[in-house]
Amino acid sequence: MSNHLSTYKDRTNLIPYSSRLAEGRALVQDVWSIFNAANLPSDCLNLGQGYMNFAPPRWIVDSAETALRGVAANHYSHPRGRIRLREAIRNFYSPSFGKELNVESEILVTSGANEGQYSVFTAFLEPGDEVIMFEPFFDQYLPSVTFNGGKPVYVPLHPPSDNKKNPTSDDWTIDFDELRRAITPRSKMIIVNTPHNPVGKVYRRSELEHIAALAEEHNLLVMADEVYDCLVFDGKEHVRIATLPGMWDRTVTVGSAGKAFAATGWRVGWLIGPPSIIQPTLAATTRIVFCTNSPLQEAAASGLEKAQEFKFFETQLSEYTTRRAILMDAFEKLGLKYTIPEGTYFVLLDVSRVKFPHDYPFPPSIIGRGRDFKASWFIAIEIGVSSIPVSEFYCEEHANIGEAYARFSFCKDYDTLKQAAERLQKLKQYID
Amino acid sequence: MSNHLSTYKDRTNLIPYSSRLAEGRALVQDVWSIFNAANLPSDCLNLGQGYMNFAPPRWIVDSAETALRGVAANHYSHPRGRIRLREAIRNFYSPSFGKELNVESEILVTSGANEGQYSVFTAFLEPGDEVIMFEPFFDQYLPSVTFNGGKPVYVPLHPPSDNKKNPTSDDWTIDFDELRRAITPRSKMIIVNTPHNPVGKVYRRSELEHIAALAEEHNLLVMADEVYDCLVFDGKEHVRIATLPGMWDRTVTVGSAGKAFAATGWRVGWLIGPPSIIQPTLAATTRIVFCTNSPLQEAAASGLEKAQEFKFFETQLSEYTTRRAILMDAFEKLGLKYTIPEGTYFVLLDVSRVKFPHDYPFPPSIIGRGRDFKASWFIAIEIGVSSIPVSEFYCEEHANIGEAYARFSFCKDYDTLKQAAERLQKLKQYID
Repeated sequence: MSNHLSTYKDRTNLIPYSSRLAEGRALVQDVWSIFNAANLPSDCLNLGQGYMNFAPPRWIVDSAETALRGVAANHYSHPRGRIRLREAIRNFYSPSFGKELNVESEILVTSGANEGQYSVFTAFLEPGDEVIMFEPFFDQYLPSVTFNGGKPVYVPLHPPSDNKKNPTSDDWTIDFDELRRAITPRSKMIIVNTPHNPVGKVYRRSELEHIAALAEEHNLLVMADEVYDCLVFDGKEHVRIATLPGMWDRTVTVGSAGKAFAATGWRVGWLIGPPSIIQPTLAATTRIVFCTNSPLQEAAASGLEKAQEFKFFETQLSEYTTRRAILMDAFEKLGLKYTIPEGTYFVLLDVSRVKFPHDYPFPPSIIGRGRDFKASWFIAIEIGVSSIPVSEFYCEEHANIGEAYARFSFCKDYDTLKQAAERLQKLKQYID
Repeated sequence: MSNHLSTYKDRTNLIPYSSRLAEGRALVQDVWSIFNAANLPSDCLNLGQGYMNFAPPRWIVDSAETALRGVAANHYSHPRGRIRLREAIRNFYSPSFGKELNVESEILVTSGANEGQYSVFTAFLEPGDEVIMFEPFFDQYLPSVTFNGGKPVYVPLHPPSDNKKNPTSDDWTIDFDELRRAITPRSKMIIVNTPHNPVGKVYRRSELEHIAALAEEHNLLVMADEVYDCLVFDGKEHVRIATLPGMWDRTVTVGSAGKAFAATGWRVGWLIGPPSIIQPTLAATTRIVFCTNSPLQEAAASGLEKAQEFKFFETQLSEYTTRRAILMDAFEKLGLKYTIPEGTYFVLLDVSRVKFPHDYPFPPSIIGRGRDFKASWFIAIEIGVSSIPVSEFYCEEHANIGEAYARFSFCKDYDTLKQAAERLQKLKQYID
């Protein structure tokens, strides 16, 4: 993701923009535009941004084409989403929620998971309401909260200790005393992103139970961002916090067709939750986008309808397991520490041992940012593999935790990943 | 459009929704859900909602399919929009703006015109900022303004006098003293919708000059909602307010692929304006939706690229002229007064002479609403043609002006319109 804000801050605006833009980093040049392909050598392999360099399955694309050749699916959909997609979501998800989902009141289609989350904030936040998020956090959360008058409150996941051998994302842990201290009378929501971007952590049942107890005690709305729920490796159990006792009524679960079907540009996502959360969010999304694009809703519906028949998610998971292995092998050979992700398509590499010359010609956008920005930039330019520095996903106070890491995406075809793995071996000479 | 809020107001919510939903009518059952096809007899001809019952042109759909068969156009687009679409917008619109538009800073693709407008409000409104809109207004404006902390201020267009023969939308006029009185130190924006939904008015140059002078005097941002700019009849001049002297710097112009290409469900729109407006709006839209769906951006691009070659807009306008004539002839024969629209695909019918029995069994959703709600409902049930009552597009104080009118859409195929025209003749018996 990127936003390329260019230099409008420097303009003398005739009509001043809203002060809400000045909060939430919305005016700062973000990591996506700095590490954008356009700024890097043209032959740089892009493991930075999390989108695929392969197409969605042909049989799902066929459904989009069928929809486009008709009439109705070229016109407005119901703001709740097309009934075919809502029914497909009900049929696909009901078993894992342990209840029959109601297509009229418990499912809402949104213009990507991003807009769905934004609409929840619009629907629920009062000025000054606090939203707790674990660091590193998906960077869109911050401005989405502040644009709607909320205040982000940060609780870090603690990285594995230095002497931990072969750490996995499960070794990134929550200090529950710290979490409890972050809760105030103004706390309104907590975001639980599992599987977690960028750590890859799949929250343990016991961790979710702990969070659930605090949510109940303090009457928090839980946003369960589970957009990577189809990418959980090694048989790890993926628990939906919405299914824990008492949690359905206060939890909205976020899903994404883009992540599920290798179609990040389709902008089709969905929310699942109780009517008391879905209905106000419908009121918000109806005004924000009115409805989501119709033909690709039909395609997403066919994906969910036929996934089982095509063993689609099983096959996709096995392919991603291979992709993950290519990247992890490369890091292993390199002798750099990394976190084995239990989910998502990201690996965090510990870049603190990567040494770059003090007088390296970093561009102005990198100077003054964390050490990880420099390391990622150096690797992109010298090795030809781009990644994303992780301090961007921390608040200023905790940014030092992130400075040790770069995020590499493996939602790329085998060839690209193998080439990247080969190139990365050249990094050896820069490791002390 | 509709939002179907159902009855969540009556629930005891565990977690209270934001008070912003209580403003801006977001919790009231709206006209679209009352006059939804699902609530009307199944054989009722739907001239209520403004979407086509025909498909977008085949050659544009072909381009969507080509995009879907590739890789890149299935993934994230740049938040500004795909470069092909931005270039197509530049090439198509630059002549009518009298300047070469810059694709990097003066054009922004949005997830429908609706989301584009919402993003402008997010980018520019401070709490309490006032936004002036002419009544009848597109109903999404109201909550889009209030959700972003703004305050709508209403100035009515005044209907033609009763003794005006064959009134056109040009006979709906602005009282400029009234407009001036509506301006306060908190006025931040004014919305100018031309061609105007639902009146069909295409603002005269002299009217726009008057508005422009006030905008300059009071430093207002002008939102020129011109989504119907390809539907201007009878050779009437469509003036872009952005092209008046001094106005480029304070005007953002809104366009829509859905309206242009009979594809209301594609959710692709665009904004054109100076960098000082486009760049803050980019910061907003990037957080709200991140980006717009990619394949249909490619299709919209091909539409603009090849429109001239296919004489697409000329042909479409001539077809809409025929459609308009079918509906106007029906009203003419009926002897009811209507406003000849100079633009858009709506006709306002004066329903004040339509008499319905006092004890007619109106549903609860209609009781207590304006007389036009009753008239529209009666016509839908008894005559089998649905329309939209116009008082919904007025603030409470001015609703009585709208109560005389029902809005009929003619974005329907010839057969549907001819059938509707025939059915409407049965209304004669109910005219006094």
